Amino acid sequence: MHAVDLIQKKRDGGRLSRTELEFLVKGYVGGEIPDYQMAAWLMAVFFRGMDAEEIADLTLIMAHSGDTLDLSGIQGIKVDKHSTGGVADTTTLVVAPLVASLGVPVAKMSGRGLGHTGGTVDKLESIPGFQVELSPQQFITQVNTIGLSLVGQTGQLAPADKLLYALRDVTATVESIPLIASSIMSKKIAAGADGFVLDVKAGKGAFMKTEEEAVELAKTMVQIGRLAKRETVALVTDMNQPLGRAVGNALEVKEAILTLRGQGPARLTELCLELAAEMLLLANAVQSRSEARRLLEESLQSGKALHKFKELIEAQGGQADVADDLSLLPQAAHTTEAAAPAAGYVQAIDPLIIGISAMELGAGREHKDSVIDLAVGIELKAEIGDYVEAGMPLATIYANDPHKLREAAGKALQAFQIGDGKPALKPTIYRKITAEQL
Amino acid sequence: MHAVDLIQKKRDGGRLSRTELEFLVKGYVGGEIPDYQMAAWLMAVFFRGMDAEEIADLTLIMAHSGDTLDLSGIQGIKVDKHSTGGVADTTTLVVAPLVASLGVPVAKMSGRGLGHTGGTVDKLESIPGFQVELSPQQFITQVNTIGLSLVGQTGQLAPADKLLYALRDVTATVESIPLIASSIMSKKIAAGADGFVLDVKAGKGAFMKTEEEAVELAKTMVQIGRLAKRETVALVTDMNQPLGRAVGNALEVKEAILTLRGQGPARLTELCLELAAEMLLLANAVQSRSEARRLLEESLQSGKALHKFKELIEAQGGQADVADDLSLLPQAAHTTEAAAPAAGYVQAIDPLIIGISAMELGAGREHKDSVIDLAVGIELKAEIGDYVEAGMPLATIYANDPHKLREAAGKALQAFQIGDGKPALKPTIYRKITAEQL
Repeated sequence: MHAVDLIQKKRDGGRLSRTELEFLVKGYVGGEIPDYQMAAWLMAVFFRGMDAEEIADLTLIMAHSGDTLDLSGIQGIKVDKHSTGGVADTTTLVVAPLVASLGVPVAKMSGRGLGHTGGTVDKLESIPGFQVELSPQQFITQVNTIGLSLVGQTGQLAPADKLLYALRDVTATVESIPLIASSIMSKKIAAGADGFVLDVKAGKGAFMKTEEEAVELAKTMVQIGRLAKRETVALVTDMNQPLGRAVGNALEVKEAILTLRGQGPARLTELCLELAAEMLLLANAVQSRSEARRLLEESLQSGKALHKFKELIEAQGGQADVADDLSLLPQAAHTTEAAAPAAGYVQAIDPLIIGISAMELGAGREHKDSVIDLAVGIELKAEIGDYVEAGMPLATIYANDPHKLREAAGKALQAFQIGDGKPALKPTIYRKITAEQL
Repeated sequence: MHAVDLIQKKRDGGRLSRTELEFLVKGYVGGEIPDYQMAAWLMAVFFRGMDAEEIADLTLIMAHSGDTLDLSGIQGIKVDKHSTGGVADTTTLVVAPLVASLGVPVAKMSGRGLGHTGGTVDKLESIPGFQVELSPQQFITQVNTIGLSLVGQTGQLAPADKLLYALRDVTATVESIPLIASSIMSKKIAAGADGFVLDVKAGKGAFMKTEEEAVELAKTMVQIGRLAKRETVALVTDMNQPLGRAVGNALEVKEAILTLRGQGPARLTELCLELAAEMLLLANAVQSRSEARRLLEESLQSGKALHKFKELIEAQGGQADVADDLSLLPQAAHTTEAAAPAAGYVQAIDPLIIGISAMELGAGREHKDSVIDLAVGIELKAEIGDYVEAGMPLATIYANDPHKLREAAGKALQAFQIGDGKPALKPTIYRKITAEQL
């Protein structure tokens, strides 16, 4: 087998067999196939695409290219959740304890973030004492004890994906749905769960700008799940404005706690309940979606979900009373308000601008080695469709560097579009994609 | 400027400016842009193509990436000739002295061959004593003295093309007309002539399998010539059977001498006369094509062209009396005939099979460092449309290794298709492409 023949085959619209894909990917990881051949193949894939089986084969080859997590020591059906990434999206911190509070085990590995704010693991570190690094054994024991653990990635999960992603990043081959889908699913599969609930964002603040693209990505990933025998469901959700109100690490933990208390913003709460309901269904913990919704809402109202979150914090060495006293979270030294320049309805809030301002305040990493400031960020005071008077606060800026306050406030204001007439509101959830629909 | 942005621009169907192409090509040659980025760009070009200006810009950037030959020391308009490569194509050895015999200077650099037989330079080396390595000064002086010189490539002509070609070869990006056209023309332009006559082959034995593809390549090269201000004309010619009758180095020199004596095969003679006529026209040496044809045919008949060939041999240290005594050329130790298995009309002669058999006899290089056997090869005894009796020789095999005779004869026979009914004959020259037609 010669790499150049496989490149040509894909270039001319052919399909590669599992053996051929294995030859390419393993050869690349092993250093026998040079990056220029892989780059040419990636660009050919960009133009020609891959069929469902090719995508699933590539995914599984990458998933098995390094360590894989063995969750068989945990009783029950393990369901993982993944979001393609948006602004003010703290769903994992709500959904994980919510689902675990109903007896469904949640064993979740999360990454650190690159972009607007930190990832789930960074956010958790704003809880004093919280340890995100557990050994695989500690991780599994904790899930068997309290039904929940949230940790950082350990080991070398899907190193082939890591290598390929780095190459795609510098060869303009990131924006390919088969490559995006296989990249995400390879890491998920390596992390060992039996099923997946995916949150595929669509809109200005997401990688997929249109609903159509997001649906295509969602379908591709659900199809991979089907072929890889991991039950997978995807929700295609709105990211044309920030999902919740908080952008920043401690701020998002605070918002998660409020949501677990039943006091969260409506759109965030709704999406958390829907994602959690899908997880309960995949775990066979409920008979129907309505049963799931009822149990989940009860768990929020009764404080069961919040209690599970406190158990999680305690089990991982953190200070659980942050859940009762939010002032124990890191606090920014300086705040200011961004005030509405005129009265009117909020027509749009550009999530990218909000995300970038938060990053510039220090909430996110611009580069791999940037240091995150856990306390800083932005809290929105209005959402699309709200009527605001001139001078009313649209956002609160939290900073430790007083010089950054004014700039961030000015930038946050640019994200808001205020005008006459109540705008049409987009739903939070556009579509649900299941294997049956493919 | 970032390479990844330029890759993306081409990927998305954009065009690169001269500055952007320069950044890529010079960066690649200089080692600042890695081969994986260049490979991704090449594959994007494969799918998206380039517009006429981009192609001309790329050509000129490559042409000026190394040494260029300065032919300004030679009086008159210098016209070069290039063939995209076929089987039994010894036109250069006929056309160069023929044109020079009419007072038009021919200063031609040729390559060594990779494939069925050697290149022009290899063929010339079968003339005892012939020196193909001259200094640029010797080369120019000789053209000013006798009007003709044929030498091997000296210096580093278009090194960017050489690097890019090597990368294309291993990334399945060879088959792109903009890339093929710019590769050929960059080397031609670096070799310094004022105008070019191109012979673009179409058919089974050529890189371009169809007339349409060959016409597209021809038009692309003529367009490059126009934009680079080098008058360029292309003939699109048939390569569905070998052009001449001889495949092999000394055998092709013999065929060239016979053609210069006016005793060459009809198709080869016709194409040589047409290519030479185009060269005379570009050099402004004649008023019309008919004047050109008349002068060229006279030169063959009067022995003027053959005399020029002998002058060339003498000037470059070779034994000029080979032109009068063909037995002075290297002779193979063994010969055999491949006989027609049945009577009938020759319907087809696959030029690739003939070419490969000649290469396997040792006439061509399979690898860069293969050693050529100048004496061996194949001589065809029939062409398409001829009626042959069973047992009549279709080809003579010349070998120095007696063990290769039978296999080569068997293989050569496979190239022939014999059947009832006289087949329709294809013309030797399909079309002429000039800048006026673009």
